[in-house]
Amino acid sequence: MFPQKTFFTAGPAQLYPNFEQIVQKAIQNHIGSISHRSKQFRNLYQETFENLSTLLNLPKDIGVFFLGSATEIWERTLQNLVEKYSFHFVNGSFSKKYYDFSVQLGKNAQKYEVALGKGFSQVEVSIPAETELLCLTQNETSTGAMMSVEKIHAFKKAYPQTLVSVDMVSSAPYPALDFSLIDTAFFSVQKAFGLPAGLGVWIANEACLEKAQKLQKKQISIGTYHSLPTLWQNFKNFETPETPNVWAIFLLNEVLKDMLQKGIQNIRYETEQKAKKLYQLLEESPHFQPFVKESADRSATVIVAETKLKSDVIIQQLAQKNAIVGAGYGNLKDYQIRIANFPAIRFEEVEKLINLLANIEIER
Amino acid sequence: MFPQKTFFTAGPAQLYPNFEQIVQKAIQNHIGSISHRSKQFRNLYQETFENLSTLLNLPKDIGVFFLGSATEIWERTLQNLVEKYSFHFVNGSFSKKYYDFSVQLGKNAQKYEVALGKGFSQVEVSIPAETELLCLTQNETSTGAMMSVEKIHAFKKAYPQTLVSVDMVSSAPYPALDFSLIDTAFFSVQKAFGLPAGLGVWIANEACLEKAQKLQKKQISIGTYHSLPTLWQNFKNFETPETPNVWAIFLLNEVLKDMLQKGIQNIRYETEQKAKKLYQLLEESPHFQPFVKESADRSATVIVAETKLKSDVIIQQLAQKNAIVGAGYGNLKDYQIRIANFPAIRFEEVEKLINLLANIEIER
Repeated sequence: MFPQKTFFTAGPAQLYPNFEQIVQKAIQNHIGSISHRSKQFRNLYQETFENLSTLLNLPKDIGVFFLGSATEIWERTLQNLVEKYSFHFVNGSFSKKYYDFSVQLGKNAQKYEVALGKGFSQVEVSIPAETELLCLTQNETSTGAMMSVEKIHAFKKAYPQTLVSVDMVSSAPYPALDFSLIDTAFFSVQKAFGLPAGLGVWIANEACLEKAQKLQKKQISIGTYHSLPTLWQNFKNFETPETPNVWAIFLLNEVLKDMLQKGIQNIRYETEQKAKKLYQLLEESPHFQPFVKESADRSATVIVAETKLKSDVIIQQLAQKNAIVGAGYGNLKDYQIRIANFPAIRFEEVEKLINLLANIEIER
Repeated sequence: MFPQKTFFTAGPAQLYPNFEQIVQKAIQNHIGSISHRSKQFRNLYQETFENLSTLLNLPKDIGVFFLGSATEIWERTLQNLVEKYSFHFVNGSFSKKYYDFSVQLGKNAQKYEVALGKGFSQVEVSIPAETELLCLTQNETSTGAMMSVEKIHAFKKAYPQTLVSVDMVSSAPYPALDFSLIDTAFFSVQKAFGLPAGLGVWIANEACLEKAQKLQKKQISIGTYHSLPTLWQNFKNFETPETPNVWAIFLLNEVLKDMLQKGIQNIRYETEQKAKKLYQLLEESPHFQPFVKESADRSATVIVAETKLKSDVIIQQLAQKNAIVGAGYGNLKDYQIRIANFPAIRFEEVEKLINLLANIEIER
């Protein structure tokens, strides 16, 4: 039994442990009222940028932009970085949606698709030569399949002219990506950063900026206030085109500071240890098994289990113990549960959850 | 002297008086963690919709959607409601930006422009016959000029086939708009609703939906997740296409409840009484005069004063007394100040500010 509701959901998720204190700090600093044109805001943007750069080891030529959601960033990357051809590795609802967005925007979107629960560790690195933007989903939130950083890095080596976009929505800052081997990546704060939804963070390098400028010169619409050239122009002064979600940026910076203090190596190590424990339970339990069969494809941050019992029975039993666990995504929801393993969840909490899962009561 | 910093800025602005309590309530209700696919969220969306409908007296055929910012809604209205021709009444930086967005999106944007500080009360109601979307800025935040609701309503009577869009970003819920005489309107929550930025609210009727569907059938790109048909489809179940800013929606609903308890008539009356006092001071003071000369064009919610002294001197003096007042916008900033008169600011606070303004010290 958890003393209070603990969210093992894949996002919106458990809030970061010091959430209430940092909200208090935001209130004391009048963060809800300060001007987004003030020095105070520019300092906040700069500090958040620098802290994120340190945490993710971002190279020098990179821009970091604040948007409404990662969903928006799907749209903006495609608008700004694709004249005709995008290519997508699809293995679930979210990688599929990224592909769908490209179709909806009138691009020539192509995809390589594998079954749900499969990853790409066994798949050859091969894309059409005309591809302008390669869209990879590092962590497919709907199925719990992930793509290894080695695999992701391999594309740039094979196709140096192709821009590589990495959706790391439900895994950042866990994957140790080498940002010199990708061009753009993005996440939202309601996943592993343990904050309320409402902010998407877009990371892009100068090759992306140049591509967007090229499209603009060709009179191809790249949007308005959230076009990459407009965002970048503002970013140079740590400003934003519109009034951004200042409140969420402040909270993100506080979480980043805490993560830096902890150390990214420790966060990654703990994430792996917790994931290991969870997968072990799933493999040993008679009631569950990991949905992703290939261990090289298994996500460390979103763990999906097939259930013998109907998932709603399990979810209800867990909820009675204050452990909030999500159902499978879409059509998979009846016999799957999804367990998020984000930094906001401590090792002891994972152990407690494992204990509850091991003791699920089967009604006969 | 104000006991603590009081923001008379035009947004981000003074937070709603019960802000700290409603944040506490959001924390207690796990608003940062709940699923946007849960019954709890759908109830919240529905309640917020109903409360906003009551407050603004919205008709039955209307949809209310949650986006990232009012800036985003400029883009979305133009993408979804204009094939070729938009027409804009321009009298400041924000109405101009709405026009610029249309140009950037490749539309044939036309405008009628008057000088800064002018309104349209003396202007004939006349637009080109081919106009698909008429873009009106009810309250021009950069200059403090407003368009009366009577004027706005007159367009629909003269041009029943033209969709009418009303930017009420820095005035809602003050203007008593008849939503049967306009088609779409929008605002953001960091102005008169007294909340942190990060949420734009888009109101649109079925005529807008039909127009967007017509464009879609013609293969004109109307965007992806935030196209009007997608938003509306989700809205029917009180869902959203992406994970929205649930936290801000919760806070907005709490503010709406408080406003309904107060009564919209009272809020409007108080707003007018406070504005009257402020304009009176500006007219009587040797140091100030209202920037907007025609009293019919003067905004009740954003009051702009020309200053004899340089504005930064005044702003600094006021800041020493904990009254935070904004500079004029853009090129007007050196000899103008802007004072927001939103519901979060009480009558006594306006009187206190007036007292400070009346006693500005002139260094000789």
